[in-house]
Amino acid sequence: MSDAPEGTLPVPPATVAKLTAQEKFTLITERLSEVLGAEQLRALLDERDLTAYWGTAPTGRPHLGYFVPLSKLADFVTAGVEVKVLLADVHAFLDNLKAPIELVEARVDYYRRLIIAVFRSLNLPLDKLKFVVGSSYQYDAKYNLDKYKLAAITSEHDARKAGAEVVKQVSSPLLSGLLYPLLQALDEEYLGVDFQFGGVDQRKIFTYAEQYLPKIGYKKRSHLMNSMVPGLSGGKMSSSDPNSKIDFLDGPAAVKSKIGKAHCAPGEVEGNGVLAFIRHVVVPIGDLFQGQGRASARAWVHADAPSDAVFTVEGNPKFGGSVAHFRTVDELDAAYAAGQVHPGDLKTAAINAINALLAPIQAEFAASAEFQQAEARAYPPEVKQVKVKAKKAYTPKPEHLKTAEEKARDAAAAAADGAKGVVRTGLDEAEKLRAAVVDTLSA
Amino acid sequence: MSDAPEGTLPVPPATVAKLTAQEKFTLITERLSEVLGAEQLRALLDERDLTAYWGTAPTGRPHLGYFVPLSKLADFVTAGVEVKVLLADVHAFLDNLKAPIELVEARVDYYRRLIIAVFRSLNLPLDKLKFVVGSSYQYDAKYNLDKYKLAAITSEHDARKAGAEVVKQVSSPLLSGLLYPLLQALDEEYLGVDFQFGGVDQRKIFTYAEQYLPKIGYKKRSHLMNSMVPGLSGGKMSSSDPNSKIDFLDGPAAVKSKIGKAHCAPGEVEGNGVLAFIRHVVVPIGDLFQGQGRASARAWVHADAPSDAVFTVEGNPKFGGSVAHFRTVDELDAAYAAGQVHPGDLKTAAINAINALLAPIQAEFAASAEFQQAEARAYPPEVKQVKVKAKKAYTPKPEHLKTAEEKARDAAAAAADGAKGVVRTGLDEAEKLRAAVVDTLSA
Repeated sequence: MSDAPEGTLPVPPATVAKLTAQEKFTLITERLSEVLGAEQLRALLDERDLTAYWGTAPTGRPHLGYFVPLSKLADFVTAGVEVKVLLADVHAFLDNLKAPIELVEARVDYYRRLIIAVFRSLNLPLDKLKFVVGSSYQYDAKYNLDKYKLAAITSEHDARKAGAEVVKQVSSPLLSGLLYPLLQALDEEYLGVDFQFGGVDQRKIFTYAEQYLPKIGYKKRSHLMNSMVPGLSGGKMSSSDPNSKIDFLDGPAAVKSKIGKAHCAPGEVEGNGVLAFIRHVVVPIGDLFQGQGRASARAWVHADAPSDAVFTVEGNPKFGGSVAHFRTVDELDAAYAAGQVHPGDLKTAAINAINALLAPIQAEFAASAEFQQAEARAYPPEVKQVKVKAKKAYTPKPEHLKTAEEKARDAAAAAADGAKGVVRTGLDEAEKLRAAVVDTLSA
Repeated sequence: MSDAPEGTLPVPPATVAKLTAQEKFTLITERLSEVLGAEQLRALLDERDLTAYWGTAPTGRPHLGYFVPLSKLADFVTAGVEVKVLLADVHAFLDNLKAPIELVEARVDYYRRLIIAVFRSLNLPLDKLKFVVGSSYQYDAKYNLDKYKLAAITSEHDARKAGAEVVKQVSSPLLSGLLYPLLQALDEEYLGVDFQFGGVDQRKIFTYAEQYLPKIGYKKRSHLMNSMVPGLSGGKMSSSDPNSKIDFLDGPAAVKSKIGKAHCAPGEVEGNGVLAFIRHVVVPIGDLFQGQGRASARAWVHADAPSDAVFTVEGNPKFGGSVAHFRTVDELDAAYAAGQVHPGDLKTAAINAINALLAPIQAEFAASAEFQQAEARAYPPEVKQVKVKAKKAYTPKPEHLKTAEEKARDAAAAAADGAKGVVRTGLDEAEKLRAAVVDTLSA
């Protein structure tokens, strides 16, 4: 277990001390799709602050989609929650058996540095963020005895059901997919947390954990789920669309180009990745800044906007557009649905917001030779192709370790296939593999 | 890893030194149902002696059925093979989650002492027998990484297929059943053996190991399989028949009573447990004794029999029977099929043979306070019922860890159910559980 490096913040948030238990509870549980075991958390908050677990497998390059869970982690930390980030190197290694273990270690390092940089950019206290590398306990005797115990009381049927939405459903599912729910349940105990946080697609894994941990003598944890957020490219299939991924290190020009090409049909709110990103990332971070007494840091709200505005869209005066301020994301969605906000103007506003979010992270990267070396070691250009081939040939990335964008993309792809009545054949799988390789190479 | 205690033998077998590589190969591979990778073993024998793996889970009381694999291990040891006996305590513990781990440890100790006693009774060199307790490596980081690796390349389908004949097929199979083939494959590497020995019912697990070990960089082992031997009670369903189990510690009166009640229809050779025991245990051990220059130790061959006789049946003169000597087990079977050997006479001969086999083992037990304490700790009468209930409620004993008798019994039961067209219902399962409990309590 390695702690985050010490960091002094320009604006140490004194927020937590001011919050009541009820206010903390509200902050922890707001903007979520579902909360299981809320009473338990509320009761604990009367006694002490909470600890949480969020996991990610350091495989591909982290991209903008990570802002979705990270902006929720910001809420947790602001409410005094100690957040344990599981850097699941064992899973990453298994995803990618042919990649040398050194590469996985380098990626663990890069992910850790990047998450810290994001936290710093949001003026969040780093002392509440604990990084735990999976291999630090997932090979231990006790953990493995517990895994055997769970395997001895879990039916194949229950394991498959638990992973149904999280483990990619392929024609020949791998045994590892059946084990993921067991591991994820045990992690809660071994990380010693009060609740686990993840996407609502993990609901069945979470209920598996609630049901089975007590059977081997461990306590049942609470589970907090955020809703699935479509990728920036929107809900359409985009496995070969490089615009669906904006890297944390993409400069303003790249962001402008990628968002410019993003799917964002006039008047369409459903599945609109740009609106979703504003709703789930930009505006909540704005609220966070406001709570930190730094309302002016919200680059996406004009300086002359009303004090209750959360987002500003500047219409192009060439086409008769004017500046519009929105007090809620619902207002923004409604205006977009009514055709009062032009897609191009929305994109321009989003581009500015994204660049504002990325700027401090990229500044930290530019200022740190170590950070740059970590990135170079994690993603050396020359091994990229080998890595991807090995990964795809061996096992699909487990759904729960995907970014929100990857999930939305796959869901949309599956829906599209379903609508067409396509029967998945070997050829179909091969086509997807090819597309995925192209995707990664051109991203 | 714990070695067998040092033991000096009254007749140190000098056999091995005298055997050629070809003779060793013949001894190792004879009396088997199938051998996979024979050429590999034959080639190795030109360079050095071999190492083998045979596994058993120390759960229920070991009984006479163990003589079947043990008499084949005798061949191996005689041919200079180092035999690693895996005492699978992890499996035993999982079979029986509610039994305290102390009980499993005590059973490991009792099994080890008993197997040593059997080896001593057969005048076999103990230095070729290595006991390895599963938990000594099955919780290790490296082993578990390898297990993850196998899980990441093994499909559910392949794992289920591998265990199809070995893992009990129940309506709601447990995940542990899918893992057993992976563990058993890895054991070959971690025990560092040239071949694994087991029943022919394990063929699919063995071929799984041959196929998958090389995929994670380990060498493919050879596999030796003995045929399935019906229990002493014969092929009929006997889950509530205590006669199907003769304990190693049963005295002559108990043996006489149990064999007396055994199913042994006149003229029926197929599924005849008494004939099978003579074929697979008594006569091979007789051959072993003869090879050791101790032909007279064969209590089942009359002193005045021809030198090539392997078994003697003494007909009851009251009914006109006379003494018959057989040169091969095929001759015995043929005579029995032709009605020339009376079941009662066959049983009497078998009872004498069994008592002769058990006598030295029981003498060692009677002379050793430690051995007696080990037995008492392993099977304390007061926890028997709790143990059985817990075991049945949690997970069925994996097929490959059952004795030959248990397997034959279950196979017969399944066949009987199939013939009756019985649909397995919850009630049916409950009935079996009840029967099993009664069985154990009355055994």
